[in-house]
Amino acid sequence: MQIPTVSPIADPDLSARLERAIANKTKPPGSLGALETIAHQIGLIQQTVEPALRRPAIIVFAADHGVVAEGISAYPQSVTWQMVENFLAEGAAINVFARASGCALQVVDAGVNHDFGPRAGLVDRKVGHGTANFAQQPAMSAADCAAAIAHGVALAAGLEGNLVGFGEMGIGNTTAAAALMHKLTGVPVAECVGAGTGLTPDGILHKQRVIEAAVERHASACEPLDILAAFGGYEIAMIAGAMLGAAERRMVLLIDGFIVTSALLVAARLQPAILDYCVFSHCSDEHGHRRMLAYLEARPLLNLGLRLGEGTGCALAVPLLHAAVDFLREMATFESAQVSDKSA
Amino acid sequence: MQIPTVSPIADPDLSARLERAIANKTKPPGSLGALETIAHQIGLIQQTVEPALRRPAIIVFAADHGVVAEGISAYPQSVTWQMVENFLAEGAAINVFARASGCALQVVDAGVNHDFGPRAGLVDRKVGHGTANFAQQPAMSAADCAAAIAHGVALAAGLEGNLVGFGEMGIGNTTAAAALMHKLTGVPVAECVGAGTGLTPDGILHKQRVIEAAVERHASACEPLDILAAFGGYEIAMIAGAMLGAAERRMVLLIDGFIVTSALLVAARLQPAILDYCVFSHCSDEHGHRRMLAYLEARPLLNLGLRLGEGTGCALAVPLLHAAVDFLREMATFESAQVSDKSA
Repeated sequence: MQIPTVSPIADPDLSARLERAIANKTKPPGSLGALETIAHQIGLIQQTVEPALRRPAIIVFAADHGVVAEGISAYPQSVTWQMVENFLAEGAAINVFARASGCALQVVDAGVNHDFGPRAGLVDRKVGHGTANFAQQPAMSAADCAAAIAHGVALAAGLEGNLVGFGEMGIGNTTAAAALMHKLTGVPVAECVGAGTGLTPDGILHKQRVIEAAVERHASACEPLDILAAFGGYEIAMIAGAMLGAAERRMVLLIDGFIVTSALLVAARLQPAILDYCVFSHCSDEHGHRRMLAYLEARPLLNLGLRLGEGTGCALAVPLLHAAVDFLREMATFESAQVSDKSA
Repeated sequence: MQIPTVSPIADPDLSARLERAIANKTKPPGSLGALETIAHQIGLIQQTVEPALRRPAIIVFAADHGVVAEGISAYPQSVTWQMVENFLAEGAAINVFARASGCALQVVDAGVNHDFGPRAGLVDRKVGHGTANFAQQPAMSAADCAAAIAHGVALAAGLEGNLVGFGEMGIGNTTAAAALMHKLTGVPVAECVGAGTGLTPDGILHKQRVIEAAVERHASACEPLDILAAFGGYEIAMIAGAMLGAAERRMVLLIDGFIVTSALLVAARLQPAILDYCVFSHCSDEHGHRRMLAYLEARPLLNLGLRLGEGTGCALAVPLLHAAVDFLREMATFESAQVSDKSA
């Protein structure tokens, strides 16, 4: 499998031009805070002092996880396919939020344990009917993991816009993401696990024990792709692939919550420059996410106590990204507006 | 002067219906975090389980402050009228952000020290050519203060929508707002003052001393309207009036940064129930704002390090308010989507 090559965005000359352009806008220096940082970053990604967002898209990847057999989720596995149906019927939170923020929405069956048949609006990239139970064996074969990544790369290549947000649906996937987080960051399992869709404290402790035992079982998995195959999911592998493909094409990557960020941990181990392309939409209420973001030195835009997934944080953050590039393109300068600068 | 009467929004029966409606949506309970709180609040304000936002508006109130004679601002007073011209020419940050979030924008001359003449797009409610220097005398007479409040009440009555955000422009107005904050909350002046548009640490200390001396000079001002007249500004008084008028009409009040929140401190002292109608758009980087929000037990939606004013935080938060009411109106329920609930 060919992993896409992601180039760093650093460009000292363009960076200086962006700084000047931002400083000349009619506002006190730095007064737009994080929006100034984002405008600068997107300028570097797009290699222009007049960045713009075209045709933003959110892709929701759905898949099932064999580890649900260990009783680690508050909801039954059937909720995964039922929620996919809800996405197709436009009834889920991500449908509402993507519509409001002007994002095209793609729903991908990466490996749901259900036969949908051919369906309008559903992108069929099913690698399998859910992963194996990683408490007993690796979640995926190396070949299936590679196939999922390759599908993700290809999906990114088909996007028409220059901004893509990533979402997911998969009962059990906070367990997979917590295991990936532990293996890829070294943070103790107890600090990686959380309530997911609503576990009790006892349920969280059980989830921790399941992961700790599996970590021992798969102790030989040390390379990022081996770790992904051992603990990940089809949707997580496909997201990692789509991220790599989109970054290779110099798109802005909008990162959602705990599961999507776990896919980024894998992608960033393969191509560290991918982080240059990432805007972190929010800090999830899922326990491990804050620590995961800190590991990546990421500053999320929103802190709203969300823990829904589906890419909802991405959809909610899109207007802020528009605001960032819009102020840089559309605001007057001190000169053009004849406003006295601070030194006057 | 007649102060509008603001009624509390509490309604136990409607509140229970809103809780049920939110709980039945196809998502784990509580997983939309702050958006669930906002949806519930706007439902109570609008007295419906299907709230909606119509014709959101942002009003920017501009005025000058005599206290600039004490050297408390990094920018000259002329920037106030120059920025009003910038608003009228659509070149300021608030123009860009209001346009993007679909908000109508009104620009009000509440008391700028400049003669604009009749101008398309400028609402002339000028009470005076800037306030007096509160280091030497009260900023406003009681009559002028009352006139400003009355103009604000009338402006709110003219709004066609059900959501209004408040913005301001006025060189020197963080000094006025810091003085109001100290008098109305009891927080020491040193913790109320900040850099404003960009003071040095020495400049901030000087600003603190100016306020502390003025607080001694006007020690007899203890009632909220006396405090407002002594230290406030025409724009701050007019904002307080517009807030009271809008809340009386059961509109959603979107609160911006440090200066707008200082106006709310006054309004809330007059009509405490006004806080029921407030959504706090963001926590500003201006030093005293976090403490001011804590005093009001307010949880701001955004923390982006903004410190620009103009109502920019309001415009950026509007999409989140839409998301809150949209999910409540548009999302499927577990029953309608045939998704298994947690207990299944």
